[in-house]
Amino acid sequence: MGERRLATDVEALRSDVDRIAQAALTAVAPETCLRRALHVEGDQLRVAKETFDLSRIQRIIVVGMGKASARMAATLEDLLGERISGGLVVTAHGYRAATRKVGIRKIKIVEASHPVPDARGLAAAKRIVTIVEEANEEDLAIVLISGGGSALLPLPASGIALYDLAATSELLLRSGAKIQEINTVRKHLSQVKGGQLAGHAFPAQVLALVLSDVPGDSLNAIASGPTVGDPTTFDQAKQILRQYRLWEEIPKSVRERIEAGVRSTIQETPKPGDAVLQRVTTTIIGSGSDAVEEALAEGERLGYYTLLLTTTLEGEAREVGKVLAALAREEVNTHRPLSLPALILAAGETTVTVRGTGKGGRNQEVALSAARGIEGLCGVVVASLGTDGRDGPTDAAGGMVDGGTVSRMRERGIDPEEYLEENNSYEALEKAGDLIVTGPTGTNVADMCFVAVGK
Amino acid sequence: MGERRLATDVEALRSDVDRIAQAALTAVAPETCLRRALHVEGDQLRVAKETFDLSRIQRIIVVGMGKASARMAATLEDLLGERISGGLVVTAHGYRAATRKVGIRKIKIVEASHPVPDARGLAAAKRIVTIVEEANEEDLAIVLISGGGSALLPLPASGIALYDLAATSELLLRSGAKIQEINTVRKHLSQVKGGQLAGHAFPAQVLALVLSDVPGDSLNAIASGPTVGDPTTFDQAKQILRQYRLWEEIPKSVRERIEAGVRSTIQETPKPGDAVLQRVTTTIIGSGSDAVEEALAEGERLGYYTLLLTTTLEGEAREVGKVLAALAREEVNTHRPLSLPALILAAGETTVTVRGTGKGGRNQEVALSAARGIEGLCGVVVASLGTDGRDGPTDAAGGMVDGGTVSRMRERGIDPEEYLEENNSYEALEKAGDLIVTGPTGTNVADMCFVAVGK
Repeated sequence: MGERRLATDVEALRSDVDRIAQAALTAVAPETCLRRALHVEGDQLRVAKETFDLSRIQRIIVVGMGKASARMAATLEDLLGERISGGLVVTAHGYRAATRKVGIRKIKIVEASHPVPDARGLAAAKRIVTIVEEANEEDLAIVLISGGGSALLPLPASGIALYDLAATSELLLRSGAKIQEINTVRKHLSQVKGGQLAGHAFPAQVLALVLSDVPGDSLNAIASGPTVGDPTTFDQAKQILRQYRLWEEIPKSVRERIEAGVRSTIQETPKPGDAVLQRVTTTIIGSGSDAVEEALAEGERLGYYTLLLTTTLEGEAREVGKVLAALAREEVNTHRPLSLPALILAAGETTVTVRGTGKGGRNQEVALSAARGIEGLCGVVVASLGTDGRDGPTDAAGGMVDGGTVSRMRERGIDPEEYLEENNSYEALEKAGDLIVTGPTGTNVADMCFVAVGK
Repeated sequence: MGERRLATDVEALRSDVDRIAQAALTAVAPETCLRRALHVEGDQLRVAKETFDLSRIQRIIVVGMGKASARMAATLEDLLGERISGGLVVTAHGYRAATRKVGIRKIKIVEASHPVPDARGLAAAKRIVTIVEEANEEDLAIVLISGGGSALLPLPASGIALYDLAATSELLLRSGAKIQEINTVRKHLSQVKGGQLAGHAFPAQVLALVLSDVPGDSLNAIASGPTVGDPTTFDQAKQILRQYRLWEEIPKSVRERIEAGVRSTIQETPKPGDAVLQRVTTTIIGSGSDAVEEALAEGERLGYYTLLLTTTLEGEAREVGKVLAALAREEVNTHRPLSLPALILAAGETTVTVRGTGKGGRNQEVALSAARGIEGLCGVVVASLGTDGRDGPTDAAGGMVDGGTVSRMRERGIDPEEYLEENNSYEALEKAGDLIVTGPTGTNVADMCFVAVGK
């Protein structure tokens, strides 16, 4: 009986975490976010503090980029209906499916490659630029921006091949440069990033609706900020490439463009306050914080004491897993920091340093690593999932582990440490029955981590 | 004025963290712990639930091993004075100094090498075994155990050279075996670990006083449990060596001993409940939890809202630093999980994967990494320190960083990322004025991490 009861307890705990995660996902679904942010009353479209008088707008065109753009477009059609003249959004392979249930007629959806850009993304980017360039003063261009948008809308500056752009990114990524530094260079090699998409739309009005996957929600960072002023310069881009000793390594076309920019013979990206951005409204309609708030609320409704650790979690996935396990152990041993039942939450984005040849993702590595740290403990669940439903190149969203996970793995001949070393978290979790599988959710905000400890 | 005030605020915060850390260190000083645990009234010595009638005890001999043993011995002399007949404790190089202020007469202190054992440690171990073997039924052997004791008391089983023992440890450490597995093998190659020191003392009474540096305070793990029953076996040791494919790699003498143990031609380590352990009392007199409790109490006295994350923190130091910084950012941005002023605490032991050739320690790496994550933030301090006062092979106990640390480093030509990559945390923190230097504290419990955010 004793054992049975423990098993039931952990099942109840897993089911609670599942329900909490579902609630969080629903809170950041494009439908929820758009309906929360946009209010249509007669001819008035209210968004944040802005009101657009639709009777004075000739055409509404819709463009978009990112993993959530298809679902966002479908919802927008549902909200604005026949008022939309047309448009095009680009999303990642497999994400169009998220619109099947709702249907979409006016806005065309194309799929392209992520995270490595491809020719389809390039073609879509060209068409999107043409669409917004054709918009005039009486038109409203609605731009649907979500995570992944940067890779999905790869339009290099004239004279630079997509291949050279990719090579430059690759060199920067390997050099240890920070993501902000990499983006500074990228923005100066693009025709759309760093406010340039909005620049192409001028003089049309622009309404950018952003679903944020960036911890801290920096508008410059989400999809490389296609509608917001770019504070960085060609000078800085050159300095960064010099600092990481890449100036001589990068393709000649890239070096020449940056030199031209430094000499001011080509135009800078639009800066904050520039005239071309005066008719642009950019607003965040959903982010990891919304998911977190709903998870906390749902946890409380289910009777848990709750604690939010951070919404900007970062670090190597397996090490973050160890820290989460340490928190779980403290809850089990001393009921601190929370009384039981306890739900501890964190949101953000961890990283994986690939060493092995296995299959997995950052959330699955967090979970597998945490499984080792809670081995044998009763009444504990640790889960980590990506809100887009796709963790790494797998069909799982993440993993949910408990005190019995490691022994279930060992029974199936799996040494968790070895599998983690091989970055083979998917197979290990699959065999233990501990994958979280949601399918593409149609949204994309931060990852979420849960530590739940029963009474 | 604005800037000045911020500077003052961060100074006040740093001074608070310093004071909180000092309070924690005092709470786990050997004096504090021994005086809290031992009560001498006339001829009665009370420890935990045991009472020793000193009038019926012929001789009190004292042996000990670990970084805190010298200071523990000095305090014990102060408490029991002339009742102590003599003894010997072994501590790490530089730790004898911690007894200078108090003086010590009856108990001899020797210094040996840590973490790599040396001939001095071997000689001390032999003398300690002889001392306890000479104790008889009417005697009381007090064993002072603290972290580092395992390396400082390296007495291989007969027939095994210290070199072969070291080679076996090295192989195990590199194989990815868990610390418990490594210790299972080590205990079966030793004359003192895994209850064997207490075995040598039989039939004398044994009182082991333990200052725990092991998260979770497992008596089997602290200094390899010289006075507690060892649940592991020769069979398991062999299995572990086979599992990590080391059976053919280990020195012949080691393989032969384990084979002999498996065939039961040599004696197992004492098991829990064995007759030779019937007269042994082992009690923890201080641990990381005591430090944590006092830090929380001192934080509250200073007006902080406090939160204990865990007392079993683990993970790669630089990644743990990132997580602590993420907590700090959340406090600054949303005042969660605590209202301000906030003090978040964690205790445990991180690890460092050495990649570079610089100088530093795990606590300094936590601090340097956290500095990058809180760059530019006002009113935030993150600190990490080792309670023994020596972080890695340096004269610093750890580091205390704030939002200005990274810019102070850059002003002095230091790129924090580069220094972290080179494991050169000491120099980076030194140049920023952010080292914590306490000197050897004479104690050794868990490491402590602090996140403090001002109002």
